[in-house]
Amino acid sequence: MQRIDAAPLGDEELQGLDAYWRAANYLSVGQIYLLANPLLKEPLRPEHIKPRLLGHWGTTPGLNLIYTHLNRVIRQRERELMYVIGPGHGGPAIVANSWLEGSWTATYPNTGQDLAGLTRLFRQFSFPGGIPSHVAPEVPGSINEGGELGYSLSHAYGAAFDNPRLVVACVVGDGEAETGPLATSWHSNKFLDPRRDGAVLPILHLNGYKIANPSVLARIGDEELTALLQGYGHEPYLVEGSEPEEVHQALAAAMDRCLDRIDEIQREARTTVADVARAAWPMIVLKTPKGWTGPHTVDGEQVEDTWRAHQVPLSGVRTNEDHLRQLEDWLRSYRPEELFEETGRPVSSVLALAPSADRRMGSSPHANGGLITRDLELPAIAEYAVPVKAPGAEDGEPTKVLGAFLRDVFTANQAHRNFRMVGPDETESNRLSAVYEVTAKAWNADRRDTDVNLATDGRVLEMLSEHTCQGWLEGYLLTGRHGLFSSYEAFVHIVDSMVNQHAKWLKTVNRLDWRRPIPSLNYLLTSHVWRQDHNGFSHQDPGFIDHVVNKKAEVVRVYLPPDTNTLLSTMDHCLRTKNYINVVVAGKQPQPNWLDWDAAALHCARGIGVWDFAGNDDGEPDVVMACAGDVPTLETMAAVDLLREHLPKLKIRVVNVVDLMRLQDATEHPHGLTDSDFDALFPPGTPVIFAYHGYPWLIHRLTYRRNNHQDLHVRGFIEEGTTTTPFDMVVRNNLDRYHLAMDVIDRVPSLGTHAISTRQWFTDQRTRHHAYVREHGEDLPEVRDWRWSR
Amino acid sequence: MQRIDAAPLGDEELQGLDAYWRAANYLSVGQIYLLANPLLKEPLRPEHIKPRLLGHWGTTPGLNLIYTHLNRVIRQRERELMYVIGPGHGGPAIVANSWLEGSWTATYPNTGQDLAGLTRLFRQFSFPGGIPSHVAPEVPGSINEGGELGYSLSHAYGAAFDNPRLVVACVVGDGEAETGPLATSWHSNKFLDPRRDGAVLPILHLNGYKIANPSVLARIGDEELTALLQGYGHEPYLVEGSEPEEVHQALAAAMDRCLDRIDEIQREARTTVADVARAAWPMIVLKTPKGWTGPHTVDGEQVEDTWRAHQVPLSGVRTNEDHLRQLEDWLRSYRPEELFEETGRPVSSVLALAPSADRRMGSSPHANGGLITRDLELPAIAEYAVPVKAPGAEDGEPTKVLGAFLRDVFTANQAHRNFRMVGPDETESNRLSAVYEVTAKAWNADRRDTDVNLATDGRVLEMLSEHTCQGWLEGYLLTGRHGLFSSYEAFVHIVDSMVNQHAKWLKTVNRLDWRRPIPSLNYLLTSHVWRQDHNGFSHQDPGFIDHVVNKKAEVVRVYLPPDTNTLLSTMDHCLRTKNYINVVVAGKQPQPNWLDWDAAALHCARGIGVWDFAGNDDGEPDVVMACAGDVPTLETMAAVDLLREHLPKLKIRVVNVVDLMRLQDATEHPHGLTDSDFDALFPPGTPVIFAYHGYPWLIHRLTYRRNNHQDLHVRGFIEEGTTTTPFDMVVRNNLDRYHLAMDVIDRVPSLGTHAISTRQWFTDQRTRHHAYVREHGEDLPEVRDWRWSR
Repeated sequence: MQRIDAAPLGDEELQGLDAYWRAANYLSVGQIYLLANPLLKEPLRPEHIKPRLLGHWGTTPGLNLIYTHLNRVIRQRERELMYVIGPGHGGPAIVANSWLEGSWTATYPNTGQDLAGLTRLFRQFSFPGGIPSHVAPEVPGSINEGGELGYSLSHAYGAAFDNPRLVVACVVGDGEAETGPLATSWHSNKFLDPRRDGAVLPILHLNGYKIANPSVLARIGDEELTALLQGYGHEPYLVEGSEPEEVHQALAAAMDRCLDRIDEIQREARTTVADVARAAWPMIVLKTPKGWTGPHTVDGEQVEDTWRAHQVPLSGVRTNEDHLRQLEDWLRSYRPEELFEETGRPVSSVLALAPSADRRMGSSPHANGGLITRDLELPAIAEYAVPVKAPGAEDGEPTKVLGAFLRDVFTANQAHRNFRMVGPDETESNRLSAVYEVTAKAWNADRRDTDVNLATDGRVLEMLSEHTCQGWLEGYLLTGRHGLFSSYEAFVHIVDSMVNQHAKWLKTVNRLDWRRPIPSLNYLLTSHVWRQDHNGFSHQDPGFIDHVVNKKAEVVRVYLPPDTNTLLSTMDHCLRTKNYINVVVAGKQPQPNWLDWDAAALHCARGIGVWDFAGNDDGEPDVVMACAGDVPTLETMAAVDLLREHLPKLKIRVVNVVDLMRLQDATEHPHGLTDSDFDALFPPGTPVIFAYHGYPWLIHRLTYRRNNHQDLHVRGFIEEGTTTTPFDMVVRNNLDRYHLAMDVIDRVPSLGTHAISTRQWFTDQRTRHHAYVREHGEDLPEVRDWRWSR
Repeated sequence: MQRIDAAPLGDEELQGLDAYWRAANYLSVGQIYLLANPLLKEPLRPEHIKPRLLGHWGTTPGLNLIYTHLNRVIRQRERELMYVIGPGHGGPAIVANSWLEGSWTATYPNTGQDLAGLTRLFRQFSFPGGIPSHVAPEVPGSINEGGELGYSLSHAYGAAFDNPRLVVACVVGDGEAETGPLATSWHSNKFLDPRRDGAVLPILHLNGYKIANPSVLARIGDEELTALLQGYGHEPYLVEGSEPEEVHQALAAAMDRCLDRIDEIQREARTTVADVARAAWPMIVLKTPKGWTGPHTVDGEQVEDTWRAHQVPLSGVRTNEDHLRQLEDWLRSYRPEELFEETGRPVSSVLALAPSADRRMGSSPHANGGLITRDLELPAIAEYAVPVKAPGAEDGEPTKVLGAFLRDVFTANQAHRNFRMVGPDETESNRLSAVYEVTAKAWNADRRDTDVNLATDGRVLEMLSEHTCQGWLEGYLLTGRHGLFSSYEAFVHIVDSMVNQHAKWLKTVNRLDWRRPIPSLNYLLTSHVWRQDHNGFSHQDPGFIDHVVNKKAEVVRVYLPPDTNTLLSTMDHCLRTKNYINVVVAGKQPQPNWLDWDAAALHCARGIGVWDFAGNDDGEPDVVMACAGDVPTLETMAAVDLLREHLPKLKIRVVNVVDLMRLQDATEHPHGLTDSDFDALFPPGTPVIFAYHGYPWLIHRLTYRRNNHQDLHVRGFIEEGTTTTPFDMVVRNNLDRYHLAMDVIDRVPSLGTHAISTRQWFTDQRTRHHAYVREHGEDLPEVRDWRWSR
């Protein structure tokens, strides 16, 4: 690891930077502790102290130091920079800096650069009705909350993609560095195009400790650490120390070197026609003490430079006179009288060190991506529709057709470079490969002659890390661009917790008028539970929907298009929306096309509807057969076919659900049907056999308040799976056509004696199937070849 | 990266190893393709071929090669070895080897080493009613399914902990290596004690490709790869080639070197009194072509050594004559006539190369951990109980008391070294630190004087990676030992998908009589949603319970002990169970002790019950106030207190739920109450106000079939959170005492006019609270100081 032996700062600049840093540190400590007396114009008394001391000091001085020095390079180089903060619990730092540079006041005019503003700034932090303790959506300049660690670097790369003039400085905490998602996200540099993307400057902040432990990377020695970072494809520069002046010089020198290297790498790439070899991008390892400049020892125990500095170093300030004095000494050690005017305004020499206008990191439009979002140009979707002469007469491959549309989305937006697809090596497997006719997979590592569809400037991002895919896409969306994540359904659970955090972010953003809506997070979950018969049980899990619907209703949408044209209509809609998480589940295997374009568009607009062509109820059904999802729709239609053949007097209504949230109460979800609309579809007293894509109880959870909930009988995935045939999968879970038909017979007692023998026939078919697949290893021909023909 | 320049194999040994490998490859291809004619005694015809070709060839020859060479070192060194297979989709390899060495037949006697057995072996693979295509629980010797990639290395370390004589060979696929969980699990070596733990031998198998892409680690050059692996703390040895003889020699030499180094490292550590410096453990990088020895070119496109070899290289064998011939040539290229007798038995020279008895990797008792599980010695739990003079009279700190019990669990089982705690740096924060009186946190990286509670042989494993913690614990449990994972509630979602896979494993294991039950996976979720008021919204999520209850009922248990003694009783129970996933949610903050030991033990045994001391219903309640979780119980009790004061004639029954699954139907979950028992607790027609710890709709999902479901009104977390006070958290989610009391008034119309003013008073209290916390930053004194005193 190189240390740069240079002292680029003259005295005045050094003193200025140090003053700025001291001001930020002062403001940080003030936020954690002070309710009043913000400039210590009188001796500190217990009533000036907050009753509950909530915040994280340990990481804060380091974050402040980096912010201060990034300001320097922004000013000197006129560079556009963003700051992504892995140790997001260091909220005080970013709030302090945002206020110092004026971004905070620009966003929240009631918190000005004056005494009243300063008092409010301190009071609001971690205070009821105020702002959270973390780098939350409330904080201007932030796109990464950091409460859940691990995603800063993938967010930073997401922000850098297609922003060629942007440098994203990303602080990685040494705690966060231990997480899996962070550990693999270093490899993002193999997917960055130095020509058309911006740069990421990782700053690994080794302050040595987590909550109660040393951090791993701080304790493996410089040699192993250097090897690790070089192995990740970086050229690391070490800045280490606990003497401010030395560290200022070293950090300034390292930042200069890193920015120079970034310029060189980009210049070479951008002035060379051919692809240039992947460069080792520079990065900084910053080793400074945890809780630096805070109390060194408290109650006889070392705090600074240990894990004890993680949260609030002095905890008894209101009741313990020694702690109170230590706090006052600590605050005064920053010499606030040199940093702030009497009015509370920072002194001019401090203010002068902040960049101006949009160059301020707290005012970067990239960090409020909705400001600069350009809506996607979407090709006329109807032109991609497949002709459907008769419902179910022919098969289509929904994702394959969607691929052609997505290809043209890439083309239509090529000039704006604002659309990306991400996925863990499954775009091809998910049959979206038409997109490779116009773009490729981003790849900046070594190539071989046999490779196909790889290019440095490819717009499809594939890495076998759902975490990295998700982090990239979040970063891309949060900075105002558009995208789609295609994944196997089962393994999207890998990013459950990331989805939680993004949903929380969006929920909060909806309450902040200054944050502009960003494009939605779109999932295409294909290779779903019913069509992982070849991979087996580990690949069969539909629970992501359940996970998502726990989030705030205003944020989540779930769609289960049953065929090709409905998938097209759904995806066209999703790509136009903002601030949602759209989950679209659709199969990649050939399956019947049910609806022509007009019918599909109407059905999707309604979200739920009666399929008149399938039923025979004349408005007074004996049974409603409802379905949501492509395979459940297929089985329902086949069951209807059987029932209409065997029990022609039975009046069946078929209801198909595309938009799952239509089932929920209108008071619970904006898409929810009113009770009267629900009753019109599902008449109270009429049994409903509901074939659902996922865990059946979700339908009960969505409908428990409905009038006819007690008449609802749901079939779905009951966690029975293995490697077998597609039809055996539905049989094992009682979702097959025969079982659905049996369910109808069981729930319509008026059917009488004839139905008993019919029921037996259905049972026999299941038995026949069982024997047949075990003998032949494939499904019964009449099942495979079944086709709706009414 | 070192290449060992040695050729340790004599001709005969080389030929033997190659024959063994060819046999395994032949058996692998046979499983993917053949229904009949297993020894090619007649020319291959379409009817010999399976109708659906399901399986993964690409990784298989490499897995077979490694297995073959591991057998060699097992035999030569009399070492106990296990094989953990990251590329778990390579099921054919492990099944083939298991059959070759006799483990398969020992487990499944109907699949003998004869022609009938061979036919069954081939037919059953990926066939309905047969075995899955992955390294599933059905496969002897496996503890890692690998369908979801990323966990092999942490599983391997989990198996190695406290097994000092065991070497766990772990194949890491280069696809898997891109996942986050795998990328950080390399650092597990900093938590391994060379004295008391076994060794892990990672084998990074770079076959270069994933499903449709090159792999990152295969395309960063040897220099960066070497640096990366050295940075992970390893000494990598390179074995590279596509000529079998050369690769056999190189792999044998590398394995010899690695096993020698492991011996040296262990010998040094075990013969030195003081701790020795952490060694760079050896590992192997194996670069061989994907789909090696399979068809090089199919239909004019290169398959071998490209991603096209990932699954089934020849897909049209039943209909395409060229493919059929190519398959036959491929199969015959292994010269089966040299490998198998006419009877289907492998020839003696092949059989002789397998280790014997339990040394066979497919027969390792560690891989069927229940065989060697020793039940925990548990101290008499009642002795840890806190005295409770009167319900709610005093506060307790549940997890702190639990810590004392866990401390003594460590002590009682010290001799057997079969209990571990894992967690992401939160054991101390979760107030379980009494355990450090008798053990420490495992730490084998650098130390400083200021460190506390770190030791090479510490039995608490803390790394800031929930994935690694989970993987370690799974590996530890699967090899027959016991453990506990303590985590912040919100961030346990990080391992959602791992929990899925473990639940699927357990569900499958329950149907395999030869797999013996293993100790349960126990979670203590503390720092839960209601007590993350200091960290804010990102830390507030109770959805893990919802995630878990989607899994098979026979596997999952959820407990919400409301106080100290119930937590003790619950955890004592969980530590005695097998094959479950036990989720225990309990706070770490001081909170009222409600039940003395006898009452707590009885209440936990029942799982749900009326708290007579709290209610006044005399058997005919006007309302049931139900609660599950510590904070909801507190708020319910406070609401009861208020209601009994303000509306003394109201007859209230208090029902507390410890075992959440008691709410579900007896037909749905083994712990479910019968309907009559449920009705006795919750009389139909009587309104129920249910205060629940998590998302309220989960209670509806569990009870939708109950008679009085329509009388059930649930309050819980509705995704409203931030940094605020504890009581403000419940107010924001309408779970506070005042709101619960208002809910009661709204649902008991018989209360009449007086209740209207009482309701207004409750509303006023909420308004007062709102104003008070925003002014003072802490909760109303009467809320903070409230105490049950009836």
